[in-house]
Amino acid sequence: MYLSKKASIEGALFEGEAVILGPTVIGRGSIVGFYSVIGYPTLSKVRGSRASVETYDEVSEGARIGEDCFVRSNSVVYERVIIGNRVQTGHFVLIREESQVGDGTLIGTNSLIDGRVRIGSEVSIQSGVYIPPMSVVGDRVFLAPFVVITNDKYPPSRRLLGVVIGDDAVIGANSVLVSGVRIGEAAVVAAGAVVTKDVPPGRVVMGAPARVVGTRDEYERKKKEYEGQTSSIPP
Amino acid sequence: MYLSKKASIEGALFEGEAVILGPTVIGRGSIVGFYSVIGYPTLSKVRGSRASVETYDEVSEGARIGEDCFVRSNSVVYERVIIGNRVQTGHFVLIREESQVGDGTLIGTNSLIDGRVRIGSEVSIQSGVYIPPMSVVGDRVFLAPFVVITNDKYPPSRRLLGVVIGDDAVIGANSVLVSGVRIGEAAVVAAGAVVTKDVPPGRVVMGAPARVVGTRDEYERKKKEYEGQTSSIPP
Amino acid sequence: MYLSKKASIEGALFEGEAVILGPTVIGRGSIVGFYSVIGYPTLSKVRGSRASVETYDEVSEGARIGEDCFVRSNSVVYERVIIGNRVQTGHFVLIREESQVGDGTLIGTNSLIDGRVRIGSEVSIQSGVYIPPMSVVGDRVFLAPFVVITNDKYPPSRRLLGVVIGDDAVIGANSVLVSGVRIGEAAVVAAGAVVTKDVPPGRVVMGAPARVVGTRDEYERKKKEYEGQTSSIPP
Repeated sequence: MYLSKKASIEGALFEGEAVILGPTVIGRGSIVGFYSVIGYPTLSKVRGSRASVETYDEVSEGARIGEDCFVRSNSVVYERVIIGNRVQTGHFVLIREESQVGDGTLIGTNSLIDGRVRIGSEVSIQSGVYIPPMSVVGDRVFLAPFVVITNDKYPPSRRLLGVVIGDDAVIGANSVLVSGVRIGEAAVVAAGAVVTKDVPPGRVVMGAPARVVGTRDEYERKKKEYEGQTSSIPP
Repeated sequence: MYLSKKASIEGALFEGEAVILGPTVIGRGSIVGFYSVIGYPTLSKVRGSRASVETYDEVSEGARIGEDCFVRSNSVVYERVIIGNRVQTGHFVLIREESQVGDGTLIGTNSLIDGRVRIGSEVSIQSGVYIPPMSVVGDRVFLAPFVVITNDKYPPSRRLLGVVIGDDAVIGANSVLVSGVRIGEAAVVAAGAVVTKDVPPGRVVMGAPARVVGTRDEYERKKKEYEGQTSSIPP
Repeated sequence: MYLSKKASIEGALFEGEAVILGPTVIGRGSIVGFYSVIGYPTLSKVRGSRASVETYDEVSEGARIGEDCFVRSNSVVYERVIIGNRVQTGHFVLIREESQVGDGTLIGTNSLIDGRVRIGSEVSIQSGVYIPPMSVVGDRVFLAPFVVITNDKYPPSRRLLGVVIGDDAVIGANSVLVSGVRIGEAAVVAAGAVVTKDVPPGRVVMGAPARVVGTRDEYERKKKEYEGQTSSIPP
């Protein structure tokens, strides 16, 4: 257990063994899981230090985590990350430097927020999602399990370009959003799609490469019908 | 290291630092890896507790792990999970609450069993597989690396519907099984497929959306031929 | 913290709590992250031991890590792994037994090198990549996030066959390379592709199943043009 003397963690709770570095702020009622590290310094600082918990504590600028958050076990949050209130993460989550996460957002187990990412409020990021640097995710977006977002159209290139996802968009499981595409507000990407072009607001796309196959209104109608059906799962 | 006084762990082995919570039962000859947590309480209990290892121990109902199992390092097993005998997991594995895993099943590194999942015996779950709540996996099923199963057809909806995979089915790498589909006994799903409809028993499907392209018998004939060939890997 | 007395770790640096087993060698200036385990013994030895950190230390043959490497936190490196100089790994990385990693290679967060894998020098493995036993990866290869490589064409079979990736190849995000395929030197696999046949050197393939759609020269021309454009990311 290592709790930095520079950290402001009054009212925060710790499951057990964990490492809190630098002037990290953790709000009242927030929980930090077992074997997690908060305020991890970026590479340039690590290289310049003697790489021990004490030197990391010296060089870390800390992370800011709001109130009533829950960072589950075996997770790592880098310095200069800003997390709002009521944010919950799963286990084995990585949130790298300079990322921002809005209030009430969920980040599922094994998801990677790979630095310099802006994520809105009330977003639902399911398990195993990959969000690279320069990505922008709007409010109330739903990212299904194992969505992969990229930021390099012709890897490895010298020009990284983030994906921008509009408010209320739904991105299906195991789909790929290629560097630079813009997903319009309330658009829907079907499971397994490979999105290589911008998706207009309120449209549903499917396939590889993804093409428009319908509208969000139709999707919502089908959803309502589906929700009205009784479950066919065996008891 | 935290070993609950309520736990029954006689004859179990611990690699080193680990956390065992509540009335967890671990059978003779089973090994728990470094930095693992067994009996992790569900969210509602955590919220009601003061979130420390002691309060978790108080509220946890424990997990049951059979004999001669091996939970490798940095893994998390929730309370009310029931694991049979001779079950092996890789590293960084999460098994959430109320999941059942049959005898002799393997669960690969980074795989996530996301709660309320029934998994049969002698199942082989390779690395990075995602199995959401309400999924049912039969006996001797093979799930290749990074299979993604979903439980919401129109996310985010109010009706979650599990996938049911019949005995002896083979699911190829990085394929997606969409919420509610039933994979028949001994069916085969090719790598990269997106399965949106039920697959009849003994059929092979391929593509996105997946379509029937052959039978298990043909698959087995091709496999026999393939197994007879000598390796073309350079020395 | 457990540092084997048999380990040669003079000049290596430790962030904090970690486990170093057997005659592991870690070069000068290399850093081992929090909650990492180096020199983890293979299954057959674990089964024969009493599964404690002391017995693991006795049976482990150790790993070799060169100089100026950085193994980030919560990672596991097995015995008989040989890692060159200036190799960096992300968090939650697993490198299993008898794998070799060349100088200057990067291995991203959550990537799994699943044993008996040969990886060249200056390779860039992004996050969440899966590389199974018997795979061979050349020099300067780029593996985008969540590439999945397989080694069994008709799973579960008795004949595992590795994928061979030539020098300078680029493999796109979330693509699948099916067991036994050879990716030629400087070939490019587009994001989301499912590669079922060999890819000739210098060709670009796309789709599922992947087909040749162009050449690396064309790809490089497009990349140059793309790199010349100004960013369209909002400030």
